[in-house]
Amino acid sequence: MNLAATMPFSTLMGVEVIEATKERIVGTLTVRPELCTAGHILHGGAVMAFADALGAVGAFLTLPDGAKGTTTIESKTNFLGSAPEGSVVTGVATPVKIGKTLSVWQTRLTTADGRDVALVTQTQLVL
Amino acid sequence: MNLAATMPFSTLMGVEVIEATKERIVGTLTVRPELCTAGHILHGGAVMAFADALGAVGAFLTLPDGAKGTTTIESKTNFLGSAPEGSVVTGVATPVKIGKTLSVWQTRLTTADGRDVALVTQTQLVL
Amino acid sequence: MNLAATMPFSTLMGVEVIEATKERIVGTLTVRPELCTAGHILHGGAVMAFADALGAVGAFLTLPDGAKGTTTIESKTNFLGSAPEGSVVTGVATPVKIGKTLSVWQTRLTTADGRDVALVTQTQLVL
Amino acid sequence: MNLAATMPFSTLMGVEVIEATKERIVGTLTVRPELCTAGHILHGGAVMAFADALGAVGAFLTLPDGAKGTTTIESKTNFLGSAPEGSVVTGVATPVKIGKTLSVWQTRLTTADGRDVALVTQTQLVL
Repeated sequence: MNLAATMPFSTLMGVEVIEATKERIVGTLTVRPELCTAGHILHGGAVMAFADALGAVGAFLTLPDGAKGTTTIESKTNFLGSAPEGSVVTGVATPVKIGKTLSVWQTRLTTADGRDVALVTQTQLVL
Repeated sequence: MNLAATMPFSTLMGVEVIEATKERIVGTLTVRPELCTAGHILHGGAVMAFADALGAVGAFLTLPDGAKGTTTIESKTNFLGSAPEGSVVTGVATPVKIGKTLSVWQTRLTTADGRDVALVTQTQLVL
Repeated sequence: MNLAATMPFSTLMGVEVIEATKERIVGTLTVRPELCTAGHILHGGAVMAFADALGAVGAFLTLPDGAKGTTTIESKTNFLGSAPEGSVVTGVATPVKIGKTLSVWQTRLTTADGRDVALVTQTQLVL
Repeated sequence: MNLAATMPFSTLMGVEVIEATKERIVGTLTVRPELCTAGHILHGGAVMAFADALGAVGAFLTLPDGAKGTTTIESKTNFLGSAPEGSVVTGVATPVKIGKTLSVWQTRLTTADGRDVALVTQTQLVL
């Protein structure tokens, strides 16, 4: 099941989750024109939204027994480089720490030719 | 001119800038179904993307003479509450510090009935 | 009672809390030589530690009934300007949101002549 | 040369840098009583100050030719676990991205028995 695709906003953006285990979530996003800035690069907001979707899948897959769900309580992005219109960005989310109350995930985004796009760190609350 | 609307991704989301001065940028976003999570609340990624758009307008309006543009180098969001599908979220961006090399902006998002949605702090580099 | 002074590290630094209500915590820190960088300005680490102490006092004062305590789960600092050796820095912490599980505090640090030093946003977990 | 030790505040804390290359900075900090909270664990402010010192050494060592120095412009900490009084915390800083204008460093702090203490991400401006 494409977990991210159950999120309407991820569908609108075109996020595809291609691997989802408790240790690693991998997704791709094609930089379509409507996801860009006026300068024809992937909009920073789209960068953050893509990463958030992957980290949230990871938090969901690692919820402790009995938990009802998870919500992002904070997210921090360092923008490292641009992704041009037409390129495909890959995001890889890995857990920093999985706890009973909180989990912390980090997602690294790169272009197909290996250039850095962003590093996103987010905290998920267990509900 | 609707500065945010010159950004295709802001147009896709439906961001509207209703006030834009050097001291304050105000925008609204209607929480349409396609901007939501599976739980019918505004997706965290859309929250961050909306705020980023407003802060970037502020950074653009306060660029020093001779600057070529601005880019977001980092952004931090604290999620404070949810915005339900169908509601309208207002974002107000104000400058924390405007410098020659960097500017820092903060955007507060609230629902029409005054509930907190998020606080976003972002750093813009002068190009 | 000087709440921050019950913290040995705050005592080592010389943090003084001069006002502490549920709405506002104000403290001062004299920039002694041992709190500085090699360049004779307040070390970034001391900036963050000072702010953290004030925000934590605020989180403590606003704990819900029955809570056992509070711990900082994340903290974000934007450095806005330097504080020279010998100056006195004032920090003012105010609540962004006080909830049952989490509270978010923001602390602004300025010099006596009103120049910005830092803006710190931190999340406290209710224990 | 103990670069961090040229910083008076790092000396006050007792930060020791035991490895410093362009790829990796390693330091240790003994959790003395005066670095603690009232609960006898390493104060969050000391955690952040320790990490900041290591990341700044890394940024200094990787400055481009002709640069005058570096300053931390923002720092984000996720607190992952506590370090008890008397323990020794090790910090390992590695570069996320080294650029001409900015560099981003990440420092992971752990106890001697391998438990997570914090993950710190900081941006350094090239001066």
